[in-house]
Amino acid sequence: MSNSIGEKFRITSFGASHGPAVGAIVDGCPANLELTAEDIQKELDKRKPGTSGVTTPRKEADEIQILSGIFEGKTDGTPITGVIFNKNQHSKDYSMFKNTPRPSHGDYGWMMKYGNYDYNGGGRGSGRITIGHVIGGAIAKKLLKTQNIEIVSHVVQIGDIKAKPQDFNTIKENIEKNPVRCGDADAAGEMEELILSKKEEGDSVGGIVETIAVNVPAGLGEPVFDRLDGDLARILMNIGAVKGVEIGLGFDVAAHTGSEINDAYQIDDGKVTTKTNNSGGIVGGMSNGMPIVSRIAVKPTPSISKCQDSIDLEKMENKKIEIKGRHDPCICPRVTVVAESSTAIILADHMIRSGFIHPSNLEF
Amino acid sequence: MSNSIGEKFRITSFGASHGPAVGAIVDGCPANLELTAEDIQKELDKRKPGTSGVTTPRKEADEIQILSGIFEGKTDGTPITGVIFNKNQHSKDYSMFKNTPRPSHGDYGWMMKYGNYDYNGGGRGSGRITIGHVIGGAIAKKLLKTQNIEIVSHVVQIGDIKAKPQDFNTIKENIEKNPVRCGDADAAGEMEELILSKKEEGDSVGGIVETIAVNVPAGLGEPVFDRLDGDLARILMNIGAVKGVEIGLGFDVAAHTGSEINDAYQIDDGKVTTKTNNSGGIVGGMSNGMPIVSRIAVKPTPSISKCQDSIDLEKMENKKIEIKGRHDPCICPRVTVVAESSTAIILADHMIRSGFIHPSNLEF
Amino acid sequence: MSNSIGEKFRITSFGASHGPAVGAIVDGCPANLELTAEDIQKELDKRKPGTSGVTTPRKEADEIQILSGIFEGKTDGTPITGVIFNKNQHSKDYSMFKNTPRPSHGDYGWMMKYGNYDYNGGGRGSGRITIGHVIGGAIAKKLLKTQNIEIVSHVVQIGDIKAKPQDFNTIKENIEKNPVRCGDADAAGEMEELILSKKEEGDSVGGIVETIAVNVPAGLGEPVFDRLDGDLARILMNIGAVKGVEIGLGFDVAAHTGSEINDAYQIDDGKVTTKTNNSGGIVGGMSNGMPIVSRIAVKPTPSISKCQDSIDLEKMENKKIEIKGRHDPCICPRVTVVAESSTAIILADHMIRSGFIHPSNLEF
Amino acid sequence: MSNSIGEKFRITSFGASHGPAVGAIVDGCPANLELTAEDIQKELDKRKPGTSGVTTPRKEADEIQILSGIFEGKTDGTPITGVIFNKNQHSKDYSMFKNTPRPSHGDYGWMMKYGNYDYNGGGRGSGRITIGHVIGGAIAKKLLKTQNIEIVSHVVQIGDIKAKPQDFNTIKENIEKNPVRCGDADAAGEMEELILSKKEEGDSVGGIVETIAVNVPAGLGEPVFDRLDGDLARILMNIGAVKGVEIGLGFDVAAHTGSEINDAYQIDDGKVTTKTNNSGGIVGGMSNGMPIVSRIAVKPTPSISKCQDSIDLEKMENKKIEIKGRHDPCICPRVTVVAESSTAIILADHMIRSGFIHPSNLEF
Repeated sequence: MSNSIGEKFRITSFGASHGPAVGAIVDGCPANLELTAEDIQKELDKRKPGTSGVTTPRKEADEIQILSGIFEGKTDGTPITGVIFNKNQHSKDYSMFKNTPRPSHGDYGWMMKYGNYDYNGGGRGSGRITIGHVIGGAIAKKLLKTQNIEIVSHVVQIGDIKAKPQDFNTIKENIEKNPVRCGDADAAGEMEELILSKKEEGDSVGGIVETIAVNVPAGLGEPVFDRLDGDLARILMNIGAVKGVEIGLGFDVAAHTGSEINDAYQIDDGKVTTKTNNSGGIVGGMSNGMPIVSRIAVKPTPSISKCQDSIDLEKMENKKIEIKGRHDPCICPRVTVVAESSTAIILADHMIRSGFIHPSNLEF
Repeated sequence: MSNSIGEKFRITSFGASHGPAVGAIVDGCPANLELTAEDIQKELDKRKPGTSGVTTPRKEADEIQILSGIFEGKTDGTPITGVIFNKNQHSKDYSMFKNTPRPSHGDYGWMMKYGNYDYNGGGRGSGRITIGHVIGGAIAKKLLKTQNIEIVSHVVQIGDIKAKPQDFNTIKENIEKNPVRCGDADAAGEMEELILSKKEEGDSVGGIVETIAVNVPAGLGEPVFDRLDGDLARILMNIGAVKGVEIGLGFDVAAHTGSEINDAYQIDDGKVTTKTNNSGGIVGGMSNGMPIVSRIAVKPTPSISKCQDSIDLEKMENKKIEIKGRHDPCICPRVTVVAESSTAIILADHMIRSGFIHPSNLEF
Repeated sequence: MSNSIGEKFRITSFGASHGPAVGAIVDGCPANLELTAEDIQKELDKRKPGTSGVTTPRKEADEIQILSGIFEGKTDGTPITGVIFNKNQHSKDYSMFKNTPRPSHGDYGWMMKYGNYDYNGGGRGSGRITIGHVIGGAIAKKLLKTQNIEIVSHVVQIGDIKAKPQDFNTIKENIEKNPVRCGDADAAGEMEELILSKKEEGDSVGGIVETIAVNVPAGLGEPVFDRLDGDLARILMNIGAVKGVEIGLGFDVAAHTGSEINDAYQIDDGKVTTKTNNSGGIVGGMSNGMPIVSRIAVKPTPSISKCQDSIDLEKMENKKIEIKGRHDPCICPRVTVVAESSTAIILADHMIRSGFIHPSNLEF
Repeated sequence: MSNSIGEKFRITSFGASHGPAVGAIVDGCPANLELTAEDIQKELDKRKPGTSGVTTPRKEADEIQILSGIFEGKTDGTPITGVIFNKNQHSKDYSMFKNTPRPSHGDYGWMMKYGNYDYNGGGRGSGRITIGHVIGGAIAKKLLKTQNIEIVSHVVQIGDIKAKPQDFNTIKENIEKNPVRCGDADAAGEMEELILSKKEEGDSVGGIVETIAVNVPAGLGEPVFDRLDGDLARILMNIGAVKGVEIGLGFDVAAHTGSEINDAYQIDDGKVTTKTNNSGGIVGGMSNGMPIVSRIAVKPTPSISKCQDSIDLEKMENKKIEIKGRHDPCICPRVTVVAESSTAIILADHMIRSGFIHPSNLEF
């Protein structure tokens, strides 16, 4: 078993890039949440490629159908199934990859482990399968909204260009205004230029995506092995192309002392807060009521059109490879949607697990 | 449920810093593994404090007893229970922390979530409970050794002092020779000095711990939600004080292009390898046969003797706090043992899950 | 989470009687199993109603579509999704059941627990949702066949009419020849008559279904809480209308002594067998190599056209109810298919868990 | 993994009959439940052998120690560990069973599956390991008591002697007055005589144990695979010696019609009840507010002193076996305590899962 995540709010994902369909079942969403296909569709549209020069020009008409779980406009506690039928996927010949794994792609692992590997468009290793994450995330976000929790993911670095910190609402507005989904309008322009120049070279570039969740109550997370930071790290690291996850100050803690970065508590207008948020809202594996801040390192798309060294696994000999086609020169803008969805899934799960949301019925 | 991890090789941990005992049950270890209390004791001794100036001078006589799971010197497939009875733990008065959470400690979350919080020595939030991890890790390492898999964790950064890269065997040797458990003998000296100077100031300092696992076969990890990188990220982030996890190049991928860091495949002496290992041995969530390399960011010990701002939760007012006592000025050396154990647990679990180790009996 | 079962071979089921679709995801089926939609369709056809006088005359054109998990005619290790779109389901008005739970149906629980209950045709409480079980069971049976394991379920009692014991192959043949799916051709006729007479009276009748699995190796089952008998009891009791489960002699053990029913071991043609099989193939929670025999008690269909007492939950007053429509006068014949599927799912799961079937790839 | 059960209220059991200790960890009990070792001890004392002629004369001084999870007399949300050190267990030589499985005992499965089998006193297959169930059950019962839920298990049949039905309070009283733990004082005497006569013959006898739980709210159980009846069936069937489980009318439903046994709803003093309780309090996999009634078939103790046929697995030849020692001539009285505990564990788990008990803190 490997295609499910979450204990109470649980996603089971299915489908391959060029198979008949992709989708997900969301089990454990409480009854009486208003939900329409449109709620999911609008999140899917954000990750859809072909909307600007910085993503692949491939067009994917990702139209969601809900097969179960809604009764009279509201969830009814039964599993919610969302499916998108794949269309026009067999336009290209992928047979050159049958025995030749693409460098820094998952192909080799799939071949070794399962033997029968659907190499068309990366099969189930394709980024396209994150549609399942987004279906789950859209429902999770709607559920969290009933508790006033909001989440935003945005690009904070592409190559060596870094965004300046912005407040939550500015980020939410700005990411819809530039194709990079960067919260800093100035940096966004430079990032776009860099991506387009790499695209021209037949190359790709990496970056960093930050996610912020606000209004999360204190006490989410189950020590010592289902901690909130551990569960977030897992789901975020599970996103293809992610090679690092940090919470709060992250790797910067290494070069600091306790007296410099400890988050002092204070009573602020009758509420407990911390003066700084170097912990990124999580201490001891539990939320402390401050904004939850994570960052993920996203590697450059491994599909590049430059010639690369690989092997022929059947003949067991070295072989050159060129990956033609229309690839994302930078995957970060689309990863923001998946990071936001993944964070929402974990938070929704823990809100139920910790008793803040009733496990079966919102009207209780 | 929150104190278990692993699907097939599963640790359930228990106990609090000042309670009667701490320990763990390891369920799912196949039968016929030779195992003695000594195998576990020698790992516990590595994380034991009081062995040098860079750790707390507290003495803990952590003597393991095995209560179940061994028959005639070998595991018998039943749960292995290891327990350490706590001794002399009630020497100190912790009552000043009853309503006053220590900055950047988990206290506040425990208080909010459970109400009845054992604040003595951090209760179950104490670093002492990683004894459970080490019990599990010791057994996992012994199990992995039957498959030729070896793991080492070492300190690669303290404050702004960085170790130079060393080969696997050098690291293994060097970490036993310096109290910092650093693989680079030169850097180790500087690190020790830095830690001692922070200790003198009543302060603490952070660092980075790297873990390398060799001889791991290709194909470990279950896409898309029980990937090997996700599971490693989760267990490593779950270690107290860890604020970041990276695999391979980690956050450095952001500033690179695909052509710079893609790992090209090659046939090398009849075996598939990659020319570089920027992926850290994991691509597409599965191992590729190369060494698995992770790094974690460890924050400075939040317990410092300098005066800090906090609050009184009963009176709901601000309050100063000073944390007296004998704390680790830098937790990194001891975290190496926990990181090594945690990595071993995940690898053992996935070796069974992926069919490389028989689930119930090594002699099959 | 409530719509998944199995650890390694895992079914996640979805859909409601009158919703857009019903189906299931099967996660954890190893790669390289030959599988077609036809393999599943032929099992679904066995549970399809409308094929004789003893089942409901409702016609359901249950045509399976496979949305994922098959590549070039074989499983590829990724989740297999089967879906059946519901057709012509809204022909009837169920609104009288909105606030009036049907006696001995699950309605009341659904109403109390989830609030928003799809009362059309029983919603997700309908027998129709066992299509998910059958999808999973069809794949499990195909997988077990590679290990020579075969399963058959047959009706052994309807009302007070009992079938005489028959051997495995006779049962397999006979159940296809009579609409009751009884292995004893003589009893089958009497059973059919009894069912038709109860149908005439607007009533329904109960019965007992037996399941036999042969060629199961010794050692399946994980003491002490994932035992094979416990897991079978759970999945069988989870079938709607089942009120009892027994293994081997079952409740008859109460009136016997140890010396009467202990199963003596013997070496038989170089193989270990038992002289009797009162244990039904499971001792100490593990299979012992003998045929695995279970029986389930199936209650009479609670939907009867006779007038019954119920309540109006909105007005909180008593109310009479008559359940019109075309109901199965006896659910047992169709339950055989679900019992067979359920048994197959548990055996497939345990064959993988116990290391008899490789977890990811049949060709290993 | 096989020694854990429960999702939110989760027991992990360990230990073998003649190993150093037996016990259990209970993870997921909410904080602020008053709990002492005495609460557990008094339940353990009920299952303790040697208290009358109908159980084994073996003396077991089963003294519980709590190693974790209690702070200032109350649970604190962390795992509760109970352990009993085994004493004087090596008084007997069991080596004749090393290669010779006892008929209808689990030995053969353990030997085949794990290879290294602790055959002393049945190892982990011994009835002694149900101490873990009772530790979990004692805590579960205390937790359920806060919600007014009470459970009683009693012997309703031994051999062919059947108890007459009694009301809940009479049963509770009577079972403490006779060694058979039968709720019907008259039948109890006959049962005791029957057991003693079988004991004299070196034989054993089976029986039936019924469990009743009252004041369980409607809506427990998670369709379709974590139903309350399925979860009860599983944990009860997992008890050694149990060969059948039924809910409500159980196997008697087979010979009835819907009109005879459907449970009509009624409004009774402003509350919803059913006129009959043939469903045993569970319909559609969910509780309906009526008493939850289950019965289990308990086989005669397979250890009998009469000579039996078995085999030598090393020499692969037939061999006679006589099981000397002091065995329970009827296990039913002691099984009542395990059935009660098992039922309590499942109900506690589902009370938390369904949101009736807060998952982390009773004071919320």
